[in-house]
Amino acid sequence: MRYGARNQLIGKVRGIKKGKLMSQVDVMLDAGGLASSVMTIDSLKDLKLKKGDSVRVVVKAVNVLLVKEG
Amino acid sequence: MRYGARNQLIGKVRGIKKGKLMSQVDVMLDAGGLASSVMTIDSLKDLKLKKGDSVRVVVKAVNVLLVKEG
Amino acid sequence: MRYGARNQLIGKVRGIKKGKLMSQVDVMLDAGGLASSVMTIDSLKDLKLKKGDSVRVVVKAVNVLLVKEG
Amino acid sequence: MRYGARNQLIGKVRGIKKGKLMSQVDVMLDAGGLASSVMTIDSLKDLKLKKGDSVRVVVKAVNVLLVKEG
Amino acid sequence: MRYGARNQLIGKVRGIKKGKLMSQVDVMLDAGGLASSVMTIDSLKDLKLKKGDSVRVVVKAVNVLLVKEG
Amino acid sequence: MRYGARNQLIGKVRGIKKGKLMSQVDVMLDAGGLASSVMTIDSLKDLKLKKGDSVRVVVKAVNVLLVKEG
Repeated sequence: MRYGARNQLIGKVRGIKKGKLMSQVDVMLDAGGLASSVMTIDSLKDLKLKKGDSVRVVVKAVNVLLVKEG
Repeated sequence: MRYGARNQLIGKVRGIKKGKLMSQVDVMLDAGGLASSVMTIDSLKDLKLKKGDSVRVVVKAVNVLLVKEG
Repeated sequence: MRYGARNQLIGKVRGIKKGKLMSQVDVMLDAGGLASSVMTIDSLKDLKLKKGDSVRVVVKAVNVLLVKEG
Repeated sequence: MRYGARNQLIGKVRGIKKGKLMSQVDVMLDAGGLASSVMTIDSLKDLKLKKGDSVRVVVKAVNVLLVKEG
Repeated sequence: MRYGARNQLIGKVRGIKKGKLMSQVDVMLDAGGLASSVMTIDSLKDLKLKKGDSVRVVVKAVNVLLVKEG
Repeated sequence: MRYGARNQLIGKVRGIKKGKLMSQVDVMLDAGGLASSVMTIDSLKDLKLKKGDSVRVVVKAVNVLLVKEG
Protein backbone atom coordinates (compact mmCIF):
# COMPACT_ATOMS: atom_id res chain seq x y z
CA MET A 1 0.00 0.00 0.00
CA ARG A 2 1.49 3.32 -1.05
CA TYR A 3 0.08 6.82 -0.55
CA GLY A 4 0.77 9.90 -2.64
CA ALA A 5 1.41 12.15 0.35
CA ARG A 6 4.59 13.37 2.04
CA ASN A 7 3.27 13.33 5.59
CA GLN A 8 2.59 9.94 7.10
CA LEU A 9 2.76 9.21 10.78
CA ILE A 10 1.57 6.22 12.77
CA GLY A 11 -0.40 6.51 15.98
CA LYS A 12 -3.12 5.13 18.21
CA VAL A 13 -6.65 6.45 18.62
CA ARG A 14 -6.90 8.24 21.97
CA GLY A 15 -10.41 9.58 21.74
CA ILE A 16 -13.41 9.97 19.46
CA LYS A 17 -16.00 12.75 19.64
CA LYS A 18 -19.21 12.63 17.65
CA GLY A 19 -21.46 15.42 16.43
CA LYS A 20 -24.58 14.84 14.38
CA LEU A 21 -22.74 14.81 11.05
CA MET A 22 -19.07 15.18 11.81
CA SER A 23 -16.64 13.44 14.14
CA GLN A 24 -13.23 14.26 15.57
CA VAL A 25 -10.61 11.59 16.16
CA ASP A 26 -7.61 12.38 18.36
CA VAL A 27 -4.51 10.28 17.76
CA MET A 28 -1.44 9.83 19.96
CA LEU A 29 1.47 9.60 17.53
CA ASP A 30 3.99 6.82 18.14
CA ALA A 31 6.79 9.33 17.50
CA GLY A 32 5.28 11.62 20.14
CA GLY A 33 2.79 14.46 19.92
CA LEU A 34 -0.89 14.53 19.05
CA ALA A 35 -2.82 14.70 15.78
CA SER A 36 -6.51 15.28 15.15
CA SER A 37 -8.69 14.44 12.18
CA VAL A 38 -12.19 15.66 11.42
CA MET A 39 -14.29 13.42 9.17
CA THR A 40 -17.94 12.64 8.56
CA ILE A 41 -19.74 10.20 10.84
CA ASP A 42 -20.22 8.10 7.70
CA SER A 43 -16.46 7.84 7.24
CA LEU A 44 -15.96 7.10 10.91
CA LYS A 45 -18.34 4.15 10.56
CA ASP A 46 -16.47 2.90 7.50
CA LEU A 47 -13.22 2.97 9.49
CA LYS A 48 -14.86 1.11 12.41
CA LEU A 49 -12.45 3.00 14.67
CA LYS A 50 -12.27 2.47 18.39
CA LYS A 51 -9.96 3.71 21.12
CA GLY A 52 -6.51 2.11 20.94
CA ASP A 53 -6.71 1.24 17.23
CA SER A 54 -3.57 1.82 15.21
CA VAL A 55 -4.02 4.29 12.34
CA ARG A 56 -1.93 5.96 9.69
CA VAL A 57 -2.20 9.76 9.69
CA VAL A 58 -1.87 11.07 6.11
CA VAL A 59 -1.55 14.73 5.07
CA LYS A 60 -0.64 16.10 1.66
CA ALA A 61 2.27 18.57 1.84
CA VAL A 62 0.21 21.33 0.17
CA ASN A 63 -2.06 21.36 3.21
CA VAL A 64 0.80 21.92 5.66
CA LEU A 65 1.37 25.52 6.75
CA LEU A 66 4.72 26.55 8.20
CA VAL A 67 4.96 29.45 10.64
CA LYS A 68 8.22 31.08 11.72
CA GLU A 69 7.84 32.66 15.10
CA GLY A 70 9.90 35.33 16.77
CA MET B 1 -0.07 33.83 19.22
CA ARG B 2 -2.90 31.35 18.82
CA TYR B 3 -3.85 29.29 15.75
CA GLY B 4 -7.25 27.89 14.87
CA ALA B 5 -5.92 24.43 14.02
CA ARG B 6 -5.77 21.17 15.96
CA ASN B 7 -2.44 19.97 14.60
CA GLN B 8 0.62 21.91 15.68
CA LEU B 9 4.06 20.40 15.90
CA ILE B 10 7.44 22.05 16.32
CA GLY B 11 10.47 21.11 14.25
CA LYS B 12 13.62 22.22 12.50
CA VAL B 13 14.10 22.76 8.76
CA ARG B 14 16.15 19.89 7.37
CA GLY B 15 16.09 20.74 3.70
CA ILE B 16 14.61 23.10 1.11
CA LYS B 17 14.00 22.28 -2.56
CA LYS B 18 13.05 24.94 -5.05
CA GLY B 19 11.19 24.70 -8.34
CA LYS B 20 10.42 27.68 -10.52
CA LEU B 21 7.20 28.57 -8.71
CA MET B 22 6.86 26.13 -5.83
CA SER B 23 9.14 24.99 -3.03
CA GLN B 24 9.21 22.02 -0.67
CA VAL B 25 10.42 22.33 2.91
CA ASP B 26 11.25 19.19 4.87
CA VAL B 27 11.06 19.50 8.64
CA MET B 28 12.48 17.19 11.32
CA LEU B 29 9.90 17.21 14.10
CA ASP B 30 11.18 17.65 17.65
CA ALA B 31 8.82 14.88 18.76
CA GLY B 32 10.30 12.60 16.09
CA GLY B 33 9.28 11.92 12.51
CA LEU B 34 9.31 14.08 9.42
CA ALA B 35 6.90 16.60 7.92
CA SER B 36 6.89 18.29 4.53
CA SER B 37 5.26 21.48 3.35
CA VAL B 38 4.78 22.69 -0.22
CA MET B 39 4.40 26.46 -0.64
CA THR B 40 5.07 29.08 -3.30
CA ILE B 41 8.58 30.48 -3.73
CA ASP B 42 7.03 33.83 -2.79
CA SER B 43 5.93 32.45 0.58
CA LEU B 44 9.30 30.81 1.11
CA LYS B 45 10.94 34.21 0.66
CA ASP B 46 8.53 35.80 3.13
CA LEU B 47 9.48 33.16 5.69
CA LYS B 48 13.21 33.71 5.06
CA LEU B 49 13.70 30.05 5.96
CA LYS B 50 17.07 28.39 6.11
CA LYS B 51 18.29 24.98 7.21
CA GLY B 52 18.13 24.57 10.98
CA ASP B 53 15.45 27.20 11.55
CA SER B 54 12.77 26.34 14.07
CA VAL B 55 9.23 26.30 12.61
CA ARG B 56 5.72 25.52 13.70
CA VAL B 57 3.94 22.96 11.50
CA VAL B 58 0.21 23.76 11.36
CA VAL B 59 -2.50 21.56 9.79
CA LYS B 60 -6.26 21.94 10.12
CA ALA B 61 -7.92 18.72 11.28
CA VAL B 62 -10.21 18.62 8.22
CA ASN B 63 -7.14 18.10 6.05
CA VAL B 64 -5.96 15.05 8.00
CA LEU B 65 -6.88 11.68 6.51
CA LEU B 66 -6.88 8.60 8.71
CA VAL B 67 -6.25 5.17 7.22
CA LYS B 68 -6.83 1.90 9.05
CA GLU B 69 -4.61 -0.80 7.66
CA GLY B 70 -4.92 -4.52 7.89
CA MET C 1 5.74 36.10 13.01
CA ARG C 2 5.75 34.92 9.41
CA TYR C 3 3.32 32.55 7.68
CA GLY C 4 3.96 30.36 4.65
CA ALA C 5 0.78 31.39 2.87
CA ARG C 6 0.05 33.91 0.13
CA ASN C 7 -3.36 34.99 1.39
CA GLN C 8 -3.40 37.00 4.57
CA LEU C 9 -6.08 39.51 5.43
CA ILE C 10 -6.85 41.26 8.70
CA GLY C 11 -10.36 41.56 10.09
CA LYS C 12 -12.61 41.63 13.11
CA VAL C 13 -14.83 38.83 14.38
CA ARG C 14 -18.44 39.66 13.56
CA GLY C 15 -20.14 36.51 14.74
CA ILE C 16 -19.53 33.00 16.08
CA LYS C 17 -21.84 30.02 15.62
CA LYS C 18 -21.32 26.80 17.53
CA GLY C 19 -22.34 23.26 16.70
CA LYS C 20 -21.58 20.28 18.92
CA LEU C 21 -18.14 19.69 17.39
CA MET C 22 -17.55 22.42 14.85
CA SER C 23 -17.83 26.19 14.90
CA GLN C 24 -18.10 28.89 12.27
CA VAL C 25 -16.48 32.30 12.72
CA ASP C 26 -17.52 35.16 10.45
CA VAL C 27 -14.97 37.95 10.01
CA MET C 28 -15.45 41.47 8.65
CA LEU C 29 -12.28 42.21 6.71
CA ASP C 30 -10.65 45.59 7.30
CA ALA C 31 -10.16 45.92 3.54
CA GLY C 32 -13.88 45.28 3.04
CA GLY C 33 -15.83 42.10 2.42
CA LEU C 34 -16.51 39.07 4.61
CA ALA C 35 -14.62 35.87 5.35
CA SER C 36 -15.71 32.72 7.17
CA SER C 37 -13.71 30.01 8.87
CA VAL C 38 -14.90 26.62 10.07
CA MET C 39 -12.85 25.04 12.85
CA THR C 40 -13.39 22.60 15.71
CA ILE C 41 -14.87 23.82 18.98
CA ASP C 42 -11.56 22.77 20.53
CA SER C 43 -9.67 25.20 18.29
CA LEU C 44 -12.21 27.93 18.95
CA LYS C 45 -11.54 27.54 22.67
CA ASP C 46 -7.78 27.72 22.10
CA LEU C 47 -8.25 30.98 20.22
CA LYS C 48 -10.47 32.40 22.99
CA LEU C 49 -12.25 34.38 20.28
CA LYS C 50 -15.02 36.83 20.99
CA LYS C 51 -16.95 39.31 18.87
CA GLY C 52 -14.83 42.31 17.88
CA ASP C 53 -11.47 40.52 18.24
CA SER C 54 -8.90 41.27 15.59
CA VAL C 55 -7.76 38.17 13.67
CA ARG C 56 -5.51 37.30 10.78
CA VAL C 57 -7.23 35.28 8.04
CA VAL C 58 -4.73 32.89 6.44
CA VAL C 59 -5.32 30.75 3.31
CA LYS C 60 -2.76 28.83 1.30
CA ALA C 61 -2.89 29.71 -2.41
CA VAL C 62 -3.47 26.06 -3.40
CA ASN C 63 -6.83 26.20 -1.64
CA VAL C 64 -8.02 29.23 -3.61
CA LEU C 65 -10.26 28.47 -6.61
CA LEU C 66 -10.65 31.05 -9.36
CA VAL C 67 -13.82 31.18 -11.46
CA LYS C 68 -14.19 33.21 -14.63
CA GLU C 69 -17.79 34.09 -15.22
CA GLY C 70 -19.57 35.16 -18.36
CA MET D 1 -24.62 30.43 -10.64
CA ARG D 2 -24.27 29.50 -6.99
CA TYR D 3 -21.22 28.13 -5.16
CA GLY D 4 -21.15 26.01 -2.03
CA ALA D 5 -18.49 28.10 -0.32
CA ARG D 6 -18.62 30.88 2.29
CA ASN D 7 -15.74 32.93 0.94
CA GLN D 8 -16.33 34.66 -2.37
CA LEU D 9 -14.60 37.85 -3.37
CA ILE D 10 -14.41 39.59 -6.74
CA GLY D 11 -11.18 40.95 -8.18
CA LYS D 12 -9.05 41.57 -11.23
CA VAL D 13 -6.02 39.56 -12.36
CA ARG D 14 -2.88 41.57 -11.63
CA GLY D 15 -0.24 39.07 -12.63
CA ILE D 16 0.33 35.49 -13.79
CA LYS D 17 3.50 33.45 -13.19
CA LYS D 18 4.05 30.14 -14.92
CA GLY D 19 6.18 27.18 -13.90
CA LYS D 20 6.40 23.98 -15.94
CA LEU D 21 3.33 22.39 -14.37
CA MET D 22 1.88 24.92 -11.97
CA SER D 23 0.92 28.57 -12.23
CA GLN D 24 0.27 31.36 -9.74
CA VAL D 25 -2.36 34.02 -10.35
CA ASP D 26 -2.32 37.19 -8.26
CA VAL D 27 -5.64 39.01 -7.95
CA MET D 28 -6.32 42.58 -6.80
CA LEU D 29 -9.59 42.35 -4.86
CA ASP D 30 -12.23 44.98 -5.61
CA ALA D 31 -12.82 45.35 -1.87
CA GLY D 32 -9.11 45.96 -1.37
CA GLY D 33 -6.22 43.62 -0.60
CA LEU D 34 -4.59 40.87 -2.62
CA ALA D 35 -5.35 37.19 -3.17
CA SER D 36 -3.28 34.47 -4.83
CA SER D 37 -4.28 31.16 -6.36
CA VAL D 38 -2.03 28.28 -7.39
CA MET D 39 -3.44 25.98 -10.07
CA THR D 40 -2.12 23.69 -12.80
CA ILE D 41 -1.08 25.16 -16.14
CA ASP D 42 -3.86 23.01 -17.61
CA SER D 43 -6.45 24.81 -15.48
CA LEU D 44 -4.93 28.19 -16.31
CA LYS D 45 -5.41 27.39 -20.00
CA ASP D 46 -9.03 26.36 -19.40
CA LEU D 47 -9.65 29.72 -17.71
CA LYS D 48 -7.98 31.62 -20.58
CA LEU D 49 -6.97 34.21 -17.98
CA LYS D 50 -5.12 37.38 -18.85
CA LYS D 51 -4.13 40.47 -16.89
CA GLY D 52 -7.11 42.66 -16.04
CA ASP D 53 -9.70 39.88 -16.29
CA SER D 54 -12.41 39.88 -13.66
CA VAL D 55 -12.50 36.68 -11.55
CA ARG D 56 -14.37 35.29 -8.60
CA VAL D 57 -12.12 34.09 -5.76
CA VAL D 58 -13.73 31.10 -4.01
CA VAL D 59 -12.50 29.45 -0.78
CA LYS D 60 -14.32 26.91 1.36
CA ALA D 61 -14.51 27.97 5.01
CA VAL D 62 -12.80 24.77 6.19
CA ASN D 63 -9.64 25.89 4.40
CA VAL D 64 -9.51 29.23 6.19
CA LEU D 65 -7.18 29.41 9.19
CA LEU D 66 -7.67 32.12 11.80
CA VAL D 67 -4.74 33.39 13.85
CA LYS D 68 -5.06 35.60 16.91
CA GLU D 69 -1.94 37.63 17.42
CA GLY D 70 -0.63 39.39 20.49
CA MET E 1 -18.34 29.80 -16.76
CA ARG E 2 -14.84 28.39 -16.28
CA TYR E 3 -13.31 26.92 -13.12
CA GLY E 4 -9.64 26.74 -12.20
CA ALA E 5 -9.78 23.09 -11.15
CA ARG E 6 -8.86 19.86 -12.91
CA ASN E 7 -11.63 17.72 -11.46
CA GLN E 8 -15.14 18.50 -12.60
CA LEU E 9 -17.91 15.95 -12.72
CA ILE E 10 -21.65 16.40 -13.20
CA GLY E 11 -24.21 14.65 -11.05
CA LYS E 12 -27.57 14.77 -9.34
CA VAL E 13 -28.24 15.32 -5.64
CA ARG E 14 -29.26 12.02 -4.07
CA GLY E 15 -29.52 13.06 -0.46
CA ILE E 16 -28.91 15.90 1.99
CA LYS E 17 -28.10 15.52 5.69
CA LYS E 18 -28.10 18.47 8.03
CA GLY E 19 -26.26 19.02 11.30
CA LYS E 20 -26.53 22.21 13.33
CA LEU E 21 -23.74 23.98 11.43
CA MET E 22 -22.60 21.64 8.69
CA SER E 23 -24.37 19.66 5.98
CA GLN E 24 -23.46 16.72 3.79
CA VAL E 25 -24.68 16.43 0.21
CA ASP E 26 -24.42 13.07 -1.58
CA VAL E 27 -24.32 13.22 -5.37
CA MET E 28 -24.87 10.45 -7.91
CA LEU E 29 -22.42 11.16 -10.70
CA ASP E 30 -23.73 10.97 -14.26
CA ALA E 31 -20.60 9.04 -15.23
CA GLY E 32 -21.29 6.55 -12.44
CA GLY E 33 -20.15 6.43 -8.84
CA LEU E 34 -20.90 8.63 -5.85
CA ALA E 35 -19.44 11.87 -4.52
CA SER E 36 -20.01 13.66 -1.22
CA SER E 37 -19.51 17.27 -0.23
CA VAL E 38 -19.49 18.75 3.26
CA MET E 39 -20.34 22.45 3.48
CA THR E 40 -21.85 24.87 6.00
CA ILE E 41 -25.62 25.07 6.37
CA ASP E 42 -25.22 28.70 5.25
CA SER E 43 -23.71 27.56 1.95
CA LEU E 44 -26.37 24.89 1.53
CA LYS E 45 -29.02 27.60 1.83
CA ASP E 46 -27.23 29.75 -0.75
CA LEU E 47 -27.26 26.81 -3.16
CA LYS E 48 -30.98 26.17 -2.53
CA LEU E 49 -30.25 22.51 -3.23
CA LYS E 50 -32.90 19.84 -3.26
CA LYS E 51 -32.93 16.17 -4.17
CA GLY E 52 -32.61 15.60 -7.92
CA ASP E 53 -30.91 18.94 -8.64
CA SER E 54 -28.08 18.86 -11.14
CA VAL E 55 -24.74 20.04 -9.70
CA ARG E 56 -21.16 20.38 -10.79
CA VAL E 57 -18.68 18.65 -8.46
CA VAL E 58 -15.40 20.61 -8.40
CA VAL E 59 -12.14 19.50 -6.74
CA LYS E 60 -8.71 21.06 -7.11
CA ALA E 61 -6.07 18.48 -8.12
CA VAL E 62 -3.90 19.31 -5.08
CA ASN E 63 -6.66 17.94 -2.85
CA VAL E 64 -6.77 14.58 -4.62
CA LEU E 65 -4.82 11.75 -2.97
CA LEU E 66 -3.79 8.73 -5.00
CA VAL E 67 -3.30 5.36 -3.32
CA LYS E 68 -1.67 2.37 -4.97
CA GLU E 69 -2.89 -0.81 -3.41
CA GLY E 70 -1.43 -4.26 -3.45
CA MET F 1 -7.62 -1.13 4.24
CA ARG F 2 -10.12 1.57 5.12
CA TYR F 3 -9.91 5.31 4.42
CA GLY F 4 -11.57 8.11 6.36
CA ALA F 5 -12.88 9.85 3.24
CA ARG F 6 -16.26 9.89 1.52
CA ASN F 7 -14.96 10.08 -2.04
CA GLN F 8 -13.21 7.02 -3.37
CA LEU F 9 -13.10 6.08 -7.01
CA ILE F 10 -11.00 3.52 -8.84
CA GLY F 11 -9.19 4.27 -12.07
CA LYS F 12 -6.16 3.71 -14.25
CA VAL F 13 -3.24 6.09 -14.77
CA ARG F 14 -3.54 7.68 -18.21
CA GLY F 15 -0.65 10.09 -18.09
CA ILE F 16 2.04 11.58 -15.86
CA LYS F 17 3.58 15.04 -16.22
CA LYS F 18 6.63 16.07 -14.25
CA GLY F 19 7.84 19.50 -13.21
CA LYS F 20 10.97 20.07 -11.16
CA LEU F 21 9.23 19.60 -7.82
CA MET F 22 5.62 18.73 -8.56
CA SER F 23 3.91 16.16 -10.77
CA GLN F 24 0.43 15.77 -12.21
CA VAL F 25 -1.17 12.36 -12.63
CA ASP F 26 -4.25 12.03 -14.83
CA VAL F 27 -6.51 9.07 -14.09
CA MET F 28 -9.24 7.53 -16.24
CA LEU F 29 -11.94 6.50 -13.78
CA ASP F 30 -13.44 3.02 -14.20
CA ALA F 31 -16.90 4.52 -13.67
CA GLY F 32 -16.19 7.03 -16.46
CA GLY F 33 -14.76 10.53 -16.43
CA LEU F 34 -11.30 11.84 -15.58
CA ALA F 35 -9.56 12.79 -12.35
CA SER F 36 -6.26 14.58 -11.78
CA SER F 37 -3.95 14.64 -8.79
CA VAL F 38 -1.04 16.99 -8.12
CA MET F 39 1.65 15.66 -5.78
CA THR F 40 5.35 16.15 -5.16
CA ILE F 41 7.87 14.30 -7.32
CA ASP F 42 8.98 12.63 -4.08
CA SER F 43 5.49 11.19 -3.56
CA LEU F 44 5.29 10.13 -7.19
CA LYS F 45 8.50 8.14 -6.70
CA ASP F 46 7.10 6.51 -3.55
CA LEU F 47 4.04 5.42 -5.52
CA LYS F 48 6.21 4.04 -8.35
CA LEU F 49 3.33 4.91 -10.70
CA LYS F 50 3.37 4.16 -14.38
CA LYS F 51 0.81 4.44 -17.15
CA GLY F 52 -1.93 1.82 -16.84
CA ASP F 53 -1.49 1.27 -13.10
CA SER F 54 -4.68 0.89 -11.09
CA VAL F 55 -5.09 3.54 -8.37
CA ARG F 56 -7.62 4.59 -5.79
CA VAL F 57 -8.61 8.26 -5.98
CA VAL F 58 -9.36 9.58 -2.49
CA VAL F 59 -10.86 13.00 -1.64
CA LYS F 60 -12.20 14.17 1.70
CA ALA F 61 -15.76 15.57 1.41
CA VAL F 62 -14.71 18.91 2.91
CA ASN F 63 -12.55 19.53 -0.16
CA VAL F 64 -15.41 18.99 -2.60
CA LEU F 65 -17.10 22.16 -3.89
CA LEU F 66 -20.59 21.97 -5.35
CA VAL F 67 -21.74 24.49 -7.94
CA LYS F 68 -25.33 24.92 -9.08
CA GLU F 69 -25.45 26.35 -12.56
CA GLY F 70 -28.23 28.14 -14.39
